[in-house]
Amino acid sequence: MNEVRVGIVGLGRLGRTHAINLAQNVPGAKLVAACSFVEDELEYAKRELGVTETYKSFEEMAASPNLDAVCIVSPSGYHPEQIRLAMEKGLHVFSEKPIGLDIEDIEKTMEVIKAHPDQVFQLGFMRRYDESYQYAKKMVDEGQLGELTVVRCYGIDPSSGLESFVNFARNSNSGGLFSDMSIHDIDLVRWFTKKEVSRVWAMGKNAAYPELDELNELETGAAMMQLEDKTMAILVAGRNAAHGYHVETELIGTKGMLRVAAAPEKNLVTVFDENGAVRPTSQNFPERFSDAFVHEMKEFISCIKEKRQPEVGAIDGLQSTKVAIACQQSVEANQIVEVK
Amino acid sequence: MNEVRVGIVGLGRLGRTHAINLAQNVPGAKLVAACSFVEDELEYAKRELGVTETYKSFEEMAASPNLDAVCIVSPSGYHPEQIRLAMEKGLHVFSEKPIGLDIEDIEKTMEVIKAHPDQVFQLGFMRRYDESYQYAKKMVDEGQLGELTVVRCYGIDPSSGLESFVNFARNSNSGGLFSDMSIHDIDLVRWFTKKEVSRVWAMGKNAAYPELDELNELETGAAMMQLEDKTMAILVAGRNAAHGYHVETELIGTKGMLRVAAAPEKNLVTVFDENGAVRPTSQNFPERFSDAFVHEMKEFISCIKEKRQPEVGAIDGLQSTKVAIACQQSVEANQIVEVK
Amino acid sequence: MNEVRVGIVGLGRLGRTHAINLAQNVPGAKLVAACSFVEDELEYAKRELGVTETYKSFEEMAASPNLDAVCIVSPSGYHPEQIRLAMEKGLHVFSEKPIGLDIEDIEKTMEVIKAHPDQVFQLGFMRRYDESYQYAKKMVDEGQLGELTVVRCYGIDPSSGLESFVNFARNSNSGGLFSDMSIHDIDLVRWFTKKEVSRVWAMGKNAAYPELDELNELETGAAMMQLEDKTMAILVAGRNAAHGYHVETELIGTKGMLRVAAAPEKNLVTVFDENGAVRPTSQNFPERFSDAFVHEMKEFISCIKEKRQPEVGAIDGLQSTKVAIACQQSVEANQIVEVK
Amino acid sequence: MNEVRVGIVGLGRLGRTHAINLAQNVPGAKLVAACSFVEDELEYAKRELGVTETYKSFEEMAASPNLDAVCIVSPSGYHPEQIRLAMEKGLHVFSEKPIGLDIEDIEKTMEVIKAHPDQVFQLGFMRRYDESYQYAKKMVDEGQLGELTVVRCYGIDPSSGLESFVNFARNSNSGGLFSDMSIHDIDLVRWFTKKEVSRVWAMGKNAAYPELDELNELETGAAMMQLEDKTMAILVAGRNAAHGYHVETELIGTKGMLRVAAAPEKNLVTVFDENGAVRPTSQNFPERFSDAFVHEMKEFISCIKEKRQPEVGAIDGLQSTKVAIACQQSVEANQIVEVK
Repeated sequence: MNEVRVGIVGLGRLGRTHAINLAQNVPGAKLVAACSFVEDELEYAKRELGVTETYKSFEEMAASPNLDAVCIVSPSGYHPEQIRLAMEKGLHVFSEKPIGLDIEDIEKTMEVIKAHPDQVFQLGFMRRYDESYQYAKKMVDEGQLGELTVVRCYGIDPSSGLESFVNFARNSNSGGLFSDMSIHDIDLVRWFTKKEVSRVWAMGKNAAYPELDELNELETGAAMMQLEDKTMAILVAGRNAAHGYHVETELIGTKGMLRVAAAPEKNLVTVFDENGAVRPTSQNFPERFSDAFVHEMKEFISCIKEKRQPEVGAIDGLQSTKVAIACQQSVEANQIVEVK
Repeated sequence: MNEVRVGIVGLGRLGRTHAINLAQNVPGAKLVAACSFVEDELEYAKRELGVTETYKSFEEMAASPNLDAVCIVSPSGYHPEQIRLAMEKGLHVFSEKPIGLDIEDIEKTMEVIKAHPDQVFQLGFMRRYDESYQYAKKMVDEGQLGELTVVRCYGIDPSSGLESFVNFARNSNSGGLFSDMSIHDIDLVRWFTKKEVSRVWAMGKNAAYPELDELNELETGAAMMQLEDKTMAILVAGRNAAHGYHVETELIGTKGMLRVAAAPEKNLVTVFDENGAVRPTSQNFPERFSDAFVHEMKEFISCIKEKRQPEVGAIDGLQSTKVAIACQQSVEANQIVEVK
Repeated sequence: MNEVRVGIVGLGRLGRTHAINLAQNVPGAKLVAACSFVEDELEYAKRELGVTETYKSFEEMAASPNLDAVCIVSPSGYHPEQIRLAMEKGLHVFSEKPIGLDIEDIEKTMEVIKAHPDQVFQLGFMRRYDESYQYAKKMVDEGQLGELTVVRCYGIDPSSGLESFVNFARNSNSGGLFSDMSIHDIDLVRWFTKKEVSRVWAMGKNAAYPELDELNELETGAAMMQLEDKTMAILVAGRNAAHGYHVETELIGTKGMLRVAAAPEKNLVTVFDENGAVRPTSQNFPERFSDAFVHEMKEFISCIKEKRQPEVGAIDGLQSTKVAIACQQSVEANQIVEVK
Repeated sequence: MNEVRVGIVGLGRLGRTHAINLAQNVPGAKLVAACSFVEDELEYAKRELGVTETYKSFEEMAASPNLDAVCIVSPSGYHPEQIRLAMEKGLHVFSEKPIGLDIEDIEKTMEVIKAHPDQVFQLGFMRRYDESYQYAKKMVDEGQLGELTVVRCYGIDPSSGLESFVNFARNSNSGGLFSDMSIHDIDLVRWFTKKEVSRVWAMGKNAAYPELDELNELETGAAMMQLEDKTMAILVAGRNAAHGYHVETELIGTKGMLRVAAAPEKNLVTVFDENGAVRPTSQNFPERFSDAFVHEMKEFISCIKEKRQPEVGAIDGLQSTKVAIACQQSVEANQIVEVK
């Protein structure tokens, strides 16, 4: 089979990561088109990544006869419509998370995806393709930890971005801490346990920037979840980790425990200086999940070539969004919320 | 001042630890009396620890003219009555946690303690006297972590004791996982934050021994708590840690995070063998808190000599028991419970 | 500029790694030719990597009009001659270490390289392109560790390969432990300190397989080195690490210390099981240096496109081999050996 | 048996540690006498430690009829004579290391010790009584690491003391880096391997304070040693660890490796702040070996009561001093030195 020709929509920080990977790091893929409102981004794609077609309209890009697939990295609100549009044009679709912000809209999108079973649909839960998470998943699936009883997930953004978030929140709605930050963690809970979440209680506290209270945003939050088989899940989400980007996952089972990134080590270096014995830490998601982004895109291309569906699909998007919304409702009600 | 003459009640595993410390490791203390139903234990105290008076009745021991203080390590149900009795006899009292099992009984005991302000009363929350916890507390109090937003506490007993617990639970009531295991963690939450717990949701899962369901006991549990100032606390308690005795505490603040015993390392050794790079882990509480038990008893004796009260008193016992009871109620109701 | 067309010689374990990288992971490179004595390897290269020309003779491959560069991964003894031959054909050359086994032969090769200054020559000291080593190098060059006083390098192969090495050694000459295993470490010492080694004392001990004594081989060895400015270097080399592939480097400076891979962690996972708190460890060099192999090849291709020479060149090969030979002589004499 | 009555000579930093332990932390011991040139120290001993006899002359203290044993913590040069004097007075002797500075003097002292086999003699190699070292020793003796091939020992003092050392060295002779700092490490090499050192090569470098060159002192040094059975030992000694007091020991065996204090962790705390994931580190020997000092003194008292000799005796002092002197000679000659 020839190279898979891909068009990308969205060339922000994450979009650029995917674009570079498609152009340079994923054998069998060819980045041929890019879509953005920002002229500079399109120039960049042409000049640096060899893209030959540029668009301001996703609809026009999706109509190009030169595409086999699209990679959707636009703002979250556009995802469902763009997924449907691309699917209906006969294209394979890789979409960043979340699959959508509104449950009805997501369900409508899932109908369209189901109606095109020969087209690949993959959602961007890249952590599943990270080497350490794969190692953990294999141990769990082989039963080395026994039966899981508790899953704990931390997703905390670096303090360095907090002030700009506060400014952003003055004018925009992030969707709330749990939708914005914990959606990957919710997916991990479901992935590792193979169970759905039944009930959640979520809460938060604004301490460095109490003005976030008025903006209905959270600096740091926590959620406890009961899964359908009584497995417990604990989430901590935040925007204020002094040491960088803290994504950590713990699995407690009847035969052992396991942590992915107990300390979010940046590399294999230990420095001994006046602070003590120091492990430098990851600073942001493109650094931490650099390889995972490549691996997930290789999987997308392989699925297309091998005419199969990836492990992570639309249902994972629907379920994780449901739970994230329940967390947000729970914060507002300060009560337990059932996940339907 | 002369040596402080102490009588001990209870010579089980923990009682023996305190007895040895009073007899050998705490300058200024002299263990003169021991009380137990078990003749062998009294023989041991005479032979090995140089105790000169032995008793089967706590009341009789408390009446001895040769005592300045008592150390209460009897079963939890006896604590309140023995505390009151000793207080009324004019003795200084060190009592193991919990201060009691029933709120009314505890409140009555507190009245008696308050009525004897010149006698020292100390509760056995030894973790506060552990070197690592003291280091953490100092950092928090100096503001090095900023304002605390999340406290996470794990207290998990080793798997090696689980089967015998199951047998025990067939005939006895442990008080429930949270009263039995989390009371120290609840005290840590209060100690670090200086705030009280307002609301809790607790739950559990029995996986290795599903028969615990019928016995109304839990193998592993989790609780989320909201404090009066919205600080969040997360507890995990359990009886099934394959690697040993896992007591870990995390403090998340606006300026940094801190973990005490992120891995419960037994010592400073790292072994590199076919398993990988291995840190041996603590196996039980006498090992982990060996020094803390000495330090808390030294503090008790110092308080007596210096005519002052220790940091950890009856109110800490009352409040931690209230929260533990709320957790247990929450498990049973599977609902959020308010702590009065 | 068009793609750089590369031919590879040698398709063993490391050769295959380079071949895959050139074919799939290095943008701007195109693997067009492969040379091997082994027919299956050539078939593999055609079938899996899209190679269009295959050869049994390096001389013939070097004469192909379709090549811009060669990648030499043949047995060490062939390196010098193949480097010279390719250079004289006008090709850019990437050669695996060592640059050669004999000093005169290497010096002759260096003359040829110098005579073709417009062709890129790069030697395969991939550790310099590892992310952790680059992080360490930057710290050193920025003076964050102050002036270096001690460099310690461990290079120990996994026990799993020791028995087969013993069998190999019965019939073949490995070149000796220090030439075989420590050449990368010697390069690191020179790279970090920017100084040359003056004197060495090396020794070894055979314990698991004492029969290696008769074969004049070492299971485990150590060397101490004095550099021209009195900086000290310590090497440990071996073939018997129970936990896997232990490559570790330490830098001690006047302002701080630093270790790369203090524990050779495989990933970010920590497992807590009956062994304790376990970090899984790297098992072999393709795993440990997977990314470094890609980065060094990207650098090779960039050098060609940008008409510049890489940081690591022929002189690094010459000097590291001199030191390795001195170590071997020191073992045999059990005396200090001067490095000329 | 009654309490063992001990007199101590020397009340400097380490002397005070031993004095406090004898007075308060070692059951069965009673500190009755102290000897010092410094009046304030004697006052301290009387006031704080309950000492009833004070002396300016060791000879007079040794003549007291109220002593069973002496603890010698005087300057190293006095050790041999004081040991002999006390032995001849019929006293049990605990002496700090080194047993002496001069081989002949040590041998003469050993003769006296041998002539009094019913009196306990113990040398202050306290690391052998550290919990982590004991754990390591047990693993080695049980064969869990297989046969040892390499022992690596680091003993590096904190940078905070370097400037005052430079001032000290202007007027005094420390005995040289290896005698001053490595004597404990040399003892560990012998203890773990049960073998003697045959040959050493030692060297050093002064970088932060090049003026140490003229004072014939070393800031940082390294030594490689060949043991009688070809086991290799590597020492690094220094006075300039930015992170504190770095005592680390590594054992490489045919079945596994082991490190004591791979990072010299101060406690069980990990701090996550803008520096990364930080383990605070030990700052000095009284902190690091606090428990070991108690344990060794408990062993001394037990030996007296149980009429047996401790594991660490005069021969260990002689052999370690021989090796330290050989290291110093090797530095001066910059050649390998045989240990007789």
